[in-house]
Amino acid sequence: MTNINKEVSVPLLPTERVDDLLTHDLRIIQSDEVFSFSMDAVLLARFANIPPRGRVLDLCTGNGVIPILLTTRTNASIEGIEIQPRLADMARRSVALNGLEQRVVIHEGDLRELHTVVGYGMYDAITVNPPYMPLNGSDLKLNSHQAMARHEIGCTLEEVIQACVRLVRTGGKVSMVHKPQRLVDIISLMRQNRLEPKIIRFVHPRAHLEANMVLIEATRDGKPEVRLQPPLIVYNEDNQYCPEIMDIYYGVKEGK
Amino acid sequence: MTNINKEVSVPLLPTERVDDLLTHDLRIIQSDEVFSFSMDAVLLARFANIPPRGRVLDLCTGNGVIPILLTTRTNASIEGIEIQPRLADMARRSVALNGLEQRVVIHEGDLRELHTVVGYGMYDAITVNPPYMPLNGSDLKLNSHQAMARHEIGCTLEEVIQACVRLVRTGGKVSMVHKPQRLVDIISLMRQNRLEPKIIRFVHPRAHLEANMVLIEATRDGKPEVRLQPPLIVYNEDNQYCPEIMDIYYGVKEGK
Repeated sequence: MTNINKEVSVPLLPTERVDDLLTHDLRIIQSDEVFSFSMDAVLLARFANIPPRGRVLDLCTGNGVIPILLTTRTNASIEGIEIQPRLADMARRSVALNGLEQRVVIHEGDLRELHTVVGYGMYDAITVNPPYMPLNGSDLKLNSHQAMARHEIGCTLEEVIQACVRLVRTGGKVSMVHKPQRLVDIISLMRQNRLEPKIIRFVHPRAHLEANMVLIEATRDGKPEVRLQPPLIVYNEDNQYCPEIMDIYYGVKEGK
Repeated sequence: MTNINKEVSVPLLPTERVDDLLTHDLRIIQSDEVFSFSMDAVLLARFANIPPRGRVLDLCTGNGVIPILLTTRTNASIEGIEIQPRLADMARRSVALNGLEQRVVIHEGDLRELHTVVGYGMYDAITVNPPYMPLNGSDLKLNSHQAMARHEIGCTLEEVIQACVRLVRTGGKVSMVHKPQRLVDIISLMRQNRLEPKIIRFVHPRAHLEANMVLIEATRDGKPEVRLQPPLIVYNEDNQYCPEIMDIYYGVKEGK
């Protein structure tokens, strides 16, 4: 991590810092009081099935971490959409910080209405790391930026899935990271909305613990049959990152 | 394994043998040409949440391996139902072989009609290891006994789930083992039928391979929220059973 802005200069607002994404010399603007990305976003950016070209969209993009990471895996044109103006602005400055303005476009707006701007079925792949907690969740003491990123304030899980199916083309892929507790909701809502789950991977903090994250890839109008990938274990018995996590965080390998 | 019938004598039909269940001195009648149990049944018999007393039912019971194993975990009265007369007869003789006639009753009949005999909502827990393959599956060269145990000939997955919800009481548990490929079907059908999946565990042959089995426990009219247990890995890197599998097969510990 670094606060040194090496090449391109972009303005930083109070509480913001520039962090190193540890891969391909990418950097990102973060703020503990506004938005910082988590491991969930990094794992989704690696898990997602992204075409080598075409058009890719990241919903609930926050500070743009997923679009920025995806630039290392594809030549597709990449877009992100974020409903909070403060975060969309952070994301745009992070894109500029990495000189990626020609590759990544950040929309500020409501994912429920994006199809009225861009049209239906325009994307080959969509990624989404949505708010995890239902509105009746417990920690609404968060400030409004944090609350909106974590709770279903701006949109429900069902609305996220409905937006995905409107925006992705037939046969296109939707990749989501979420909490395993919501698995039944996610799977039921996806199937009801013609997004067929095809690949699922659970993330366990340790091999003997319950999963605390799930990665799901669905295909629009796909044939029913899902594959359950090997468990992704974060820490080994010596409290070190397992090799696959080391590779995802620090490696430069492409693909899943 | 042994062909020696140690204490109780029951008649064996051609191709049948008596195998040792490796736990509590239990034995079972099997036949490679008619029905032999697999690891799936053993894992389900351990995974299932079984009350200490009350009434427990095993659907698609085959040669009765699950009811016989469950006698070691509960004082509940245990029933099994099997549609194939040849298998129901094997199951009854296996029950007799272990002197369990007072604990286990085997019904010969169609699970879709059991509620007309026993009534609705009569069971505290149900286990089921249903046929895995849809009717359009590939290996219909199997003989009729094998085909019926493995393919959805006698009943579909949806009919199995509908039978479960008719037979289990509100708040009662339904535990199923199935192929992960069918996960989306299972979860969607369970929720549609008021069986809420609460605990899921995937079984992977090795830590780096995809899951080849899924264990699911649902609660009738349960609150939505599912837990994803740690992965159950069958073989370690030295091609030996992992400790948990050793315990399930050879141990005598009770409970999950």
